Amino acid sequence: MASNNARLILASASPRRKELLERFALSFEVIPARGEEAAPGELPPGDLVCRLAEAKAAEVARTVSDSRAVIIAADTVVELDGRILGKPGTPERAKAMLTALSGKTNRVWSGLCVRCGEETRCACERTDVLFRELTEAEIDAYVATGEPLDKAGAYGYQSLASLFVERIEGDYFNVVGLPLCRLGELLREFGVALL
Amino acid sequence: MASNNARLILASASPRRKELLERFALSFEVIPARGEEAAPGELPPGDLVCRLAEAKAAEVARTVSDSRAVIIAADTVVELDGRILGKPGTPERAKAMLTALSGKTNRVWSGLCVRCGEETRCACERTDVLFRELTEAEIDAYVATGEPLDKAGAYGYQSLASLFVERIEGDYFNVVGLPLCRLGELLREFGVALL
Repeated sequence: MASNNARLILASASPRRKELLERFALSFEVIPARGEEAAPGELPPGDLVCRLAEAKAAEVARTVSDSRAVIIAADTVVELDGRILGKPGTPERAKAMLTALSGKTNRVWSGLCVRCGEETRCACERTDVLFRELTEAEIDAYVATGEPLDKAGAYGYQSLASLFVERIEGDYFNVVGLPLCRLGELLREFGVALL
Repeated sequence: MASNNARLILASASPRRKELLERFALSFEVIPARGEEAAPGELPPGDLVCRLAEAKAAEVARTVSDSRAVIIAADTVVELDGRILGKPGTPERAKAMLTALSGKTNRVWSGLCVRCGEETRCACERTDVLFRELTEAEIDAYVATGEPLDKAGAYGYQSLASLFVERIEGDYFNVVGLPLCRLGELLREFGVALL
């Protein structure tokens, strides 16, 4: 069993996850997982992200000798009508994704895995995100800002896409990439308090 | 009718509202409304916040001679079971509010008013916020951080209370104090584009 004196490791290279965790008065280090584990095809999104988070935690655990270290891993995907939307990478693909998202509800799934030694706790969180109807001019203006390119699903609700999202149902921080309420509960099971 | 060259004024002293608006590439100035208009008693929360936002916009409009200036005003309250929760101010009141919020859904209401000359557009936004069950130790630890004291309803979902909120239904930015999606739509009616 860990405690608040345990070494805390965030197994993610995401600057947004790091920033979310930094709000708490707890020191941690970052050891990014490469996350190259292939996901078994055709898994439902909730199972997929849990599997990937678990694999990331296991990958980092292999490089850490301290068996009391507590490792946090997460994986987030955006799903629309059963299709996973990755990072668009190009303006053309960003425009196509945003056109598909317009007026519809997409689902953001995060898998979360906390691991200490051989003990693991995993959880999955889903948030539904409703976009209002977007005009082509708005989509073009948003793509021109460059923001969508490196975002899964081509949008950052925490930033400029706040203008596009009418409502969400679920944990807001899950959409940013780290469901904090759930994370706090998992960490508590390992004796780590974020507050 | 205003345009993107119009002078934009935020009629609020809230640093959180200023910060939210600063994400957009649009310059604006801050002229805080004192907001001393007395609210007619016993109004439903949605009507109350609209009335207060409208009064704030009108108050600032009286001090601005430029009739093309576009004024943004907002008012936000937290409601639990029909009771409005203000800023607790003291640790004791913060603890009592958080104890009441534990395991329940509270509602955050924002009224929004955009005004240019004599023309006004108002809207109301509601977000439901579900707290998980909190322990007394957690509430004490949160109150000890000082965060709840100056927050309506004694919590900041955007900050440490992210550990307490299981899910929301509505616009996240409404909970922070400025419903951005709705604001973008109102501003567009005055020819001002945030993107």
